[in-house]
Amino acid sequence: MSDTAKPAPLFDKLALIGIGLIGSSIALRARRDGLVRSVVAATRSQKTADTANRIGVVDHCGTDLAAAVKDADLVIICTPVGACGEAMKTIAPAMKPGAIVSEVGSVKQAVIRDMRPHVPAGVHFVPAHPIAGTEHSGPEAGFPTLFDGRWCILTPLEGTDQGAVDRLAAFWTACGSMVEFMAPDWHDMVLGIVSHLPHLIAYTIVGTADDMAGERRSEVIKFAAGGFRDFTRIAASDPTMWRDVFLNNREAVLEILGRFQEDLFSLQRAIRWGEGDKLFELFTRTRDIRRALIDMKQA
Amino acid sequence: MSDTAKPAPLFDKLALIGIGLIGSSIALRARRDGLVRSVVAATRSQKTADTANRIGVVDHCGTDLAAAVKDADLVIICTPVGACGEAMKTIAPAMKPGAIVSEVGSVKQAVIRDMRPHVPAGVHFVPAHPIAGTEHSGPEAGFPTLFDGRWCILTPLEGTDQGAVDRLAAFWTACGSMVEFMAPDWHDMVLGIVSHLPHLIAYTIVGTADDMAGERRSEVIKFAAGGFRDFTRIAASDPTMWRDVFLNNREAVLEILGRFQEDLFSLQRAIRWGEGDKLFELFTRTRDIRRALIDMKQA
Repeated sequence: MSDTAKPAPLFDKLALIGIGLIGSSIALRARRDGLVRSVVAATRSQKTADTANRIGVVDHCGTDLAAAVKDADLVIICTPVGACGEAMKTIAPAMKPGAIVSEVGSVKQAVIRDMRPHVPAGVHFVPAHPIAGTEHSGPEAGFPTLFDGRWCILTPLEGTDQGAVDRLAAFWTACGSMVEFMAPDWHDMVLGIVSHLPHLIAYTIVGTADDMAGERRSEVIKFAAGGFRDFTRIAASDPTMWRDVFLNNREAVLEILGRFQEDLFSLQRAIRWGEGDKLFELFTRTRDIRRALIDMKQA
Repeated sequence: MSDTAKPAPLFDKLALIGIGLIGSSIALRARRDGLVRSVVAATRSQKTADTANRIGVVDHCGTDLAAAVKDADLVIICTPVGACGEAMKTIAPAMKPGAIVSEVGSVKQAVIRDMRPHVPAGVHFVPAHPIAGTEHSGPEAGFPTLFDGRWCILTPLEGTDQGAVDRLAAFWTACGSMVEFMAPDWHDMVLGIVSHLPHLIAYTIVGTADDMAGERRSEVIKFAAGGFRDFTRIAASDPTMWRDVFLNNREAVLEILGRFQEDLFSLQRAIRWGEGDKLFELFTRTRDIRRALIDMKQA
């Protein structure tokens, strides 16, 4: 880190638990911009660790989670959300007092419920969710600009040291993110709407299409240039990550899904009875929503 | 058309009935590459005609449909599918014997049902569907490369003059399309799967999300970078065009929608009961489908 053009590192040692798309992208950005002096990782899978070491995405990647967090002043758990609690339990005894522990899960309430009881006194727990990703996964999928211009939502708990929150926010800002603060339950509802439900629908529709096409599936896939192609991209996202999201944001997803089903049945009925006005009205409204989104520069 | 590098025109006069995204893109391509000697258009809307004339996308655009097709040896109806029958009826008396009349609808059986009775003897009716589009509409939305590398499905009826079919296929190939032949009913089922259902779902989900967010919609839209953004793009497609698609491909859409609902309820149940294996299994299968699509170079 002798590049004098770079600002002083924000942390001495960053430890990543899990080194998939998100973990490796954090590592690459942190190293590229000198945000930390050293970055290590640990993962349960020897094969993933071997890959991470081979491509050199971190200084070292092992399979001993506790060993990795030793002396780290920032630990980020980058596993699927269902594994966060167990990971926290494993690393807790090895964590340095005064260190910050965070994670990157797409669900906040369940992750807080699972991790919080294991966080040692003197360690600052600050949940975070960078809203960024691709349909690719694993350490080779990472790239340093993944978070550029993307939101990172922090959901700090009451009583958390403000200095720790500020330092984590500064880290994510340095990773290219726009940082926003939210309550965990509101986070889970918003993400349920804009991300979890769309993913569930995309998974379903691709499966339904595949079943229907049967023996003639290659003929169907061939013409996927319509809306279907976008769905297949979404439906190619990491299966383990998404299984855990649905199991851990169950209440919000079921609530949103129930409303969606009602609306879909209402449209189905309009199609059956030839009620063109109803269809036209909805299609016009959704076009306006898209325009609002473009105005907010999210499209 | 004095450019000697260009091949001889395929048709003398092309008449477009309707000059939205598809019509204007055909016009721009046909003129750019000298596929026709002249191209005129007609539309019911004076405002649209004025726009088309102002930007000069065709030689002339009027509002008299019958006048436009006079002396044309290729007529392509580019209206929403619900208007094809009436348009055919209007232009029928003015059509030149030996001319080809085609259209570009996303539904084939209903369009054939509506147009065929009005096609005069001696005029060759060849239905076609270029699978291409954007979320923008109107004459200003067109661009000459819209059809490059995209499929154009022809669904010629039994007894149609093969020479006419070949000439239309040559025209679409010259527009950049890959031409494929299909039976009308199979076309409607395949498109129902890869295009109509995805659009219906996208419209629904964007509406549901908007309702749920209510007063806090701007907070929700702000974080649309997840799967939701792709849905809003699809749900911004032309409302009239899509209303007509659903009303005119009702049987296939209701059949596919029924299966989709079953599959979605099954997933909903898996989430409620915490059946992670079921979720994981589907998510893995859909990822494989995406890979098949990439192998076929459709992604």
